[in-house]
Amino acid sequence: MSRVGEFDIIRDYFAGAPTSQSVVLGIGDDCALLQPPPGSILATSVDTLVAGRHFPEGADAAKVASRALRVNLSDLAAMGAKPLWFTLALTLPAADRKWLERFSRGLLETAREYGISLVGGDTTAGPLSITVQVTGHAQKPLRRDGAGAGDGVYVSGPLGAAAAALPVVLGERKVDSELRQAAEAAFYWPEPQLQLAQSIVPLATAAIDISDGLLADLGHICRASGVSAELDIEALPVAALARELTPEQARELAATGGDDYQLCFTVPKGDVPELERMNTGAVRIGTLIPASGEPQVLARRHGQSWTPKHPGYQHF
Amino acid sequence: MSRVGEFDIIRDYFAGAPTSQSVVLGIGDDCALLQPPPGSILATSVDTLVAGRHFPEGADAAKVASRALRVNLSDLAAMGAKPLWFTLALTLPAADRKWLERFSRGLLETAREYGISLVGGDTTAGPLSITVQVTGHAQKPLRRDGAGAGDGVYVSGPLGAAAAALPVVLGERKVDSELRQAAEAAFYWPEPQLQLAQSIVPLATAAIDISDGLLADLGHICRASGVSAELDIEALPVAALARELTPEQARELAATGGDDYQLCFTVPKGDVPELERMNTGAVRIGTLIPASGEPQVLARRHGQSWTPKHPGYQHF
Repeated sequence: MSRVGEFDIIRDYFAGAPTSQSVVLGIGDDCALLQPPPGSILATSVDTLVAGRHFPEGADAAKVASRALRVNLSDLAAMGAKPLWFTLALTLPAADRKWLERFSRGLLETAREYGISLVGGDTTAGPLSITVQVTGHAQKPLRRDGAGAGDGVYVSGPLGAAAAALPVVLGERKVDSELRQAAEAAFYWPEPQLQLAQSIVPLATAAIDISDGLLADLGHICRASGVSAELDIEALPVAALARELTPEQARELAATGGDDYQLCFTVPKGDVPELERMNTGAVRIGTLIPASGEPQVLARRHGQSWTPKHPGYQHF
Repeated sequence: MSRVGEFDIIRDYFAGAPTSQSVVLGIGDDCALLQPPPGSILATSVDTLVAGRHFPEGADAAKVASRALRVNLSDLAAMGAKPLWFTLALTLPAADRKWLERFSRGLLETAREYGISLVGGDTTAGPLSITVQVTGHAQKPLRRDGAGAGDGVYVSGPLGAAAAALPVVLGERKVDSELRQAAEAAFYWPEPQLQLAQSIVPLATAAIDISDGLLADLGHICRASGVSAELDIEALPVAALARELTPEQARELAATGGDDYQLCFTVPKGDVPELERMNTGAVRIGTLIPASGEPQVLARRHGQSWTPKHPGYQHF
């Protein structure tokens, strides 16, 4: 392992980062200088991934980098924002050239794919963790607090893939190489729903990305908007990886598994036909109703009340 | 120690954060929504502080928070930018209510003092580290690459305080309580030079904040601008804390000690009289000259070439 200084790290590994017209000055000064699109509202979000908690220690650095950027891009999608810039704060035990090469490759590939510019960062010695902050711009931001009773509740695609993938990624569950590849893809290459988000911006009243699990995240929309939700558990689209398990486990993962980064969004009753005509691939899973008391998510299966066996993701 | 969840942390400790008109939507959604001042250029910078490296394990959380925000505000000062917003990514071993109370108090007090709004964040379980990203706006950004031969070189105030304070803060050097307080203030409450920065914006050709040591940071200006610097070591203003040491040690700390967050900036020969009339308190320490070969900082003392015994701060 060869050690390098901070300035070398930036020069050697991140200098080739994609850039855009809106970046007046990128990496290398006290601050990056940025020119926001005229009249736009900026959307910004920050997420930290810690080794041993959000990804296995010793995981391929390119995959970790991909995941770190994608989960942040998903927050932009959830606001209906288009990506502009991001920063990277990287804490790592030593400046390991091999690791940095893999990491920067994964990061910059993902950045190019989604047209987002790396504009600044910090590298620090310490236990491995990665903090990414993304900024985008929105014409009409999709907040959590705009939903109303009568709105249809949708998810952008299949759920439960990342939760089903986790034991495989952690090496706790042995599977054949095809399934293992699918699990790694679900965990490290989640697809931020940026395109779908743009198409629903004119119709949606609220949106959130599913990072903590559908029940928990739809609950955030309900509390922010002061409504309850009736959810048909049988209507949930279940990811192929989760369908490898028992039907009961698959349902459970689709309802509570985090990290899929699909969007959950709401559309007023009157706009439902237009949404359906758009063929976005989104699936209707329920309806918002007036809250009697505290807003809550009422999950039903075959007309019966349904509760998961395991709660959603806990940060502490 | 009582444990609390992520959503409680945000609600209980950071909900009272100062805000401003430019914040459309603060903490609590997928992204913060921000409205930049019309026509402005944004300046953004991120820094991570790791426990045991940038501050002692077990340090008072209020002091750590103050330092985390101030070192970032200093980067805005170095660009001639005015503070707008910041985010906080907090990784901590457990959600310790007492620690969080002290931390949020120190953070929000500092935020109020400098008129910057906390707009978002992430809390994660893991080894203690704090990542702050600040954003400000600038009419005429002060970059590192605008300096020219003939420019006067200035520092905004006394140097060497934080470097002299470090052994006291780390408990390696025992001093009386008055000196100890002064050391803690120098280390945890560095003063970001935001006001001075605004006053020199019309004149300065380049600026940097001194975080790695004067020689190292002036070196960045020289390389970015393609000039060398002649520096008079005897002209360096030395902080009172450093003057407690031997004159030789004091010189050494003033020239190479990091973490003071004074500004080093350059002013064209023709504008020097105007700067001096402004009584900013800044001190002239040298002159830029054409670079013969690689740009470098040529330190002189009583006409003789002078080199420090210890190099500047190394990140790895």
